[in-house]
Amino acid sequence: MADYQNILIAVDFSAAANAVITRAKNIARNNLAKLTLIHVVEYLPPIDIAYEPVLSSTWNIDENELVEQAKQSLNKFCTEHQIATVQQHVVIGTPKHEICEYARNHQCDLVIMGSHGRHGLGLLLGSTANGVLHEMPCDVLAVKIKE
Amino acid sequence: MADYQNILIAVDFSAAANAVITRAKNIARNNLAKLTLIHVVEYLPPIDIAYEPVLSSTWNIDENELVEQAKQSLNKFCTEHQIATVQQHVVIGTPKHEICEYARNHQCDLVIMGSHGRHGLGLLLGSTANGVLHEMPCDVLAVKIKE
Repeated sequence: MADYQNILIAVDFSAAANAVITRAKNIARNNLAKLTLIHVVEYLPPIDIAYEPVLSSTWNIDENELVEQAKQSLNKFCTEHQIATVQQHVVIGTPKHEICEYARNHQCDLVIMGSHGRHGLGLLLGSTANGVLHEMPCDVLAVKIKE
Repeated sequence: MADYQNILIAVDFSAAANAVITRAKNIARNNLAKLTLIHVVEYLPPIDIAYEPVLSSTWNIDENELVEQAKQSLNKFCTEHQIATVQQHVVIGTPKHEICEYARNHQCDLVIMGSHGRHGLGLLLGSTANGVLHEMPCDVLAVKIKE
């Protein structure tokens, strides 16, 4: 009996992501599970009540361009790790919110992420550990990232 | 190829522990892994610099008795969940420290605990999420506890 059928892997493109994807591939294979990769582009529009007039004229980043770049990176990541057929998703927002939301909307039964790293569980949890784990609709596996 | 060979399960005796042990038994069976249960008795001797003279004469708890009681509870828990042959360990101390220490000293490759609950990951992590996950020597699976 498989433990998990629908696994979501949260990846950044750090060295930590290699350990996460290696573990996730094994677990998915052993469970014959569907595997989906999600990368969250963290982008805060540079709006500040005090400085907005100054910043808004000098700062001009196209959100679509950020997403497009991330999609290419994710594609490259999948090719490098020989998981070309996996579902890939790039979203823009707050990692913890977007990952919970995706897992909930797609009935994922396991989220796999690094124990730390740019988007690791440690950082996601921050000082609201309880809050995030409550919000997560399913099990969470934090893969140990060796320094 | 098994993902994990040596699994440590941290249990309190709350309702949450049932979800944790059910999941853990499945994962252990699918991986043909060794399973060890650990329960940490959280006991702070009632010593307070300001009030010690008052408290120390009125408060007299035998630590050995606490451990003995916990061992009986753990034994009962194992019988109820039909895991009589599993390794059982009761230690006294700070849960996050004792769990990390045990996992490190016994080369555990996965720690399974509830996402919350009295000794759940959320509470263990508290406001020092990064610190605990760094200290953990292996992967950590937080089993979702439904309210």
